[in-house]
Amino acid sequence: MTYLEELGCKAKKAEAAIRGISQNTKNLALAAVADSLVKNAELIISDNQKDIENAKANNMSEAMQDRLRLDMKRIEAMAEGVRKIVELPDPVGKVWGGKELPNGLKIVKKSVPLGVVGIIFESRPNVTVDAAALCLKSGNVSVLRGGSDAINSNKRLVSIMREAISGAGVDENAINLVEDTSREAVGEFMKLNRYIDVLIPRGGHGLIQNVVNNSTIPVIQTGEGNCSVYVDKSADIETAVNIVDNGKTQRPSVCNAIENILVHEDAAEEFLRALDKKWNGKVKIYGDAAASKYIKTDREATEEDYKTEFLDYVISVKTVKDISEAIDFINTYGTRHSECIVTSELSNAERFQREVDAAAVYVNASTRFTDGGEFGLGAEIGISTQKLHARGPMGLEEMTSYKYLINGNGQIRQ
Amino acid sequence: MTYLEELGCKAKKAEAAIRGISQNTKNLALAAVADSLVKNAELIISDNQKDIENAKANNMSEAMQDRLRLDMKRIEAMAEGVRKIVELPDPVGKVWGGKELPNGLKIVKKSVPLGVVGIIFESRPNVTVDAAALCLKSGNVSVLRGGSDAINSNKRLVSIMREAISGAGVDENAINLVEDTSREAVGEFMKLNRYIDVLIPRGGHGLIQNVVNNSTIPVIQTGEGNCSVYVDKSADIETAVNIVDNGKTQRPSVCNAIENILVHEDAAEEFLRALDKKWNGKVKIYGDAAASKYIKTDREATEEDYKTEFLDYVISVKTVKDISEAIDFINTYGTRHSECIVTSELSNAERFQREVDAAAVYVNASTRFTDGGEFGLGAEIGISTQKLHARGPMGLEEMTSYKYLINGNGQIRQ
Repeated sequence: MTYLEELGCKAKKAEAAIRGISQNTKNLALAAVADSLVKNAELIISDNQKDIENAKANNMSEAMQDRLRLDMKRIEAMAEGVRKIVELPDPVGKVWGGKELPNGLKIVKKSVPLGVVGIIFESRPNVTVDAAALCLKSGNVSVLRGGSDAINSNKRLVSIMREAISGAGVDENAINLVEDTSREAVGEFMKLNRYIDVLIPRGGHGLIQNVVNNSTIPVIQTGEGNCSVYVDKSADIETAVNIVDNGKTQRPSVCNAIENILVHEDAAEEFLRALDKKWNGKVKIYGDAAASKYIKTDREATEEDYKTEFLDYVISVKTVKDISEAIDFINTYGTRHSECIVTSELSNAERFQREVDAAAVYVNASTRFTDGGEFGLGAEIGISTQKLHARGPMGLEEMTSYKYLINGNGQIRQ
Repeated sequence: MTYLEELGCKAKKAEAAIRGISQNTKNLALAAVADSLVKNAELIISDNQKDIENAKANNMSEAMQDRLRLDMKRIEAMAEGVRKIVELPDPVGKVWGGKELPNGLKIVKKSVPLGVVGIIFESRPNVTVDAAALCLKSGNVSVLRGGSDAINSNKRLVSIMREAISGAGVDENAINLVEDTSREAVGEFMKLNRYIDVLIPRGGHGLIQNVVNNSTIPVIQTGEGNCSVYVDKSADIETAVNIVDNGKTQRPSVCNAIENILVHEDAAEEFLRALDKKWNGKVKIYGDAAASKYIKTDREATEEDYKTEFLDYVISVKTVKDISEAIDFINTYGTRHSECIVTSELSNAERFQREVDAAAVYVNASTRFTDGGEFGLGAEIGISTQKLHARGPMGLEEMTSYKYLINGNGQIRQ
């Protein structure tokens, strides 16, 4: 057995026990995790410091170093995140429905954990704690594969969590870390169908495409958001400017931020002049020829721009001749995450919501609301951009499957 | 563009229109399909005859030829299947829930079609009609890739269906056939993520594993059933014999038939002697040493047998020392399809249903009931053995995803 097969095997063995533990035990274990993270903050910071030093030696950018860094405040925020998960309703054991057949057979459809969930993510170590806690709360065993940049932090965090849950009577193998962060190991990890039920990648385009293209385990694709706002001919211009501004500048680095503006040619002049005034050069604009008449553009937009999730103070602007062209654009270049129309015409609002193929389709509101917290799911493991299983923000319920329990007294099929 | 890219592109283009058509239009189109199949039965039979002749020339077994053959009765049965689908409730547009946020934003979670569904299947041409009809009813565009054995039949069936729906005002590209049945084409087909949302393989172990291992499109794994019955110490022997007999012999070639018997050592003598009497050599038995004392076995069972879906009058028998060993066996060798315990002890019934990881877990009833029709789903595209998206029998509802529709009046995120 390879290192990963052994790890997978241990995780799979823990699965049956974890699936069966009570809500109380899970909650006590998670509370212990939260306490233990705070109590061991110094150890965490010291191991995180090793990662930071390596990052500096490897010339990691300041922004990336910041994502990697843990301090007392961030550790307390992680612990607080875990405590919030404790308070959420348990998604396991919910009865979705049932019936009694004419022959007396009783069928019940009941929610169960997914089983063993693999998570592949990048350098932010808070994902380690967040993902492990969401998995445990939903009765799943987690196998976490973080980036090599954060390996020292992750080892410490996982070791603290394992000790904490074990003290609360939960098998420590409910939370597992892949310590081999090599490229070969991640390749092998994505093919451990025998031990892992579902794989969730959390990270940028490259990471997600690598998992989608190479995993033989069922994948939930998350987090790529090439989102657009379409400003209709009938749009209220102030509303449009506010929604576009919020979508681009409130937090440009997140997946529900917008990357493209589509504006009806008849609204282009008024809208773009107003936006130009609002932004005044704050956002770099790649625009088509028509747009550049009314707003200061950096250069002409290319097809590549339309496909790009900038995640920065950069946006593309395209004028369109009607709503059909806008919908076509979105269905062609979008990643099926969040899309918005600003309009005052009911039929256009309805058509946009019907024909745009995305997890969240907005009328007259900012795409920034696509979020587990905002949607009231309490917590979020990611935002699914695929249509299988879950779509949009994935909370605890989306971390479960179901099974049919059938009870009879000797029924056989005729 | 390759042949398949062109086909995928056409299918994707049809998607937006198909997603939006009314229940009435879909039902009229399906009714037209049913009528047209019957009306064109002679053409179908004549093209099917070409496949049968090729099959004979290729020395296909009689049993396989029989699966391939279409006659008037079978065509009428296909049409009747389509008419039944017309009568089922439309799964699209169902509101799963919604809420109004404190800021006035209204969120509705609504069922939508999956989009473009690829189906890869083997030689039975009735799957062609069944799959296309289920996809259309659920608002999905289908791209059907049947086996080369049935290519003449499939071309005719698809051409009839396309003409019929087109006559009812539905874009004929809602139903598509991959006419290139080469190995290379199927490899390319499984990577058409840009055009196909979900891939469903229907067939034997080899086909399914090929799709699971090579597809980059999200897959729903269906239909492999290595199912077991565990006869507990406390089992009523007559009940156990009837359930085992029904599971093995009522229709051995289907996925919910049983392939293994596990019997508690204390029940082995009485149960196996009774089963021996019932079967009297009708079923070939691979048994362990203990079992062979009480029932006529062909040879000793091997680990390979425990993994094998015989789909024939063949079964393996293993005595176990307790329920734990039975559950371990099932979770090790089972395909998570359907599993059964025969017992009169409540705690064992509950433990088995909790700890066995399968789509359908039975107490004192035959596994043969795992079926969309029996479960009241009306129709079935397959039986999922994975935990992502759908588990167990997949009906029309399982052929949908959902989207969030969010309506505001200028809300932005703070």
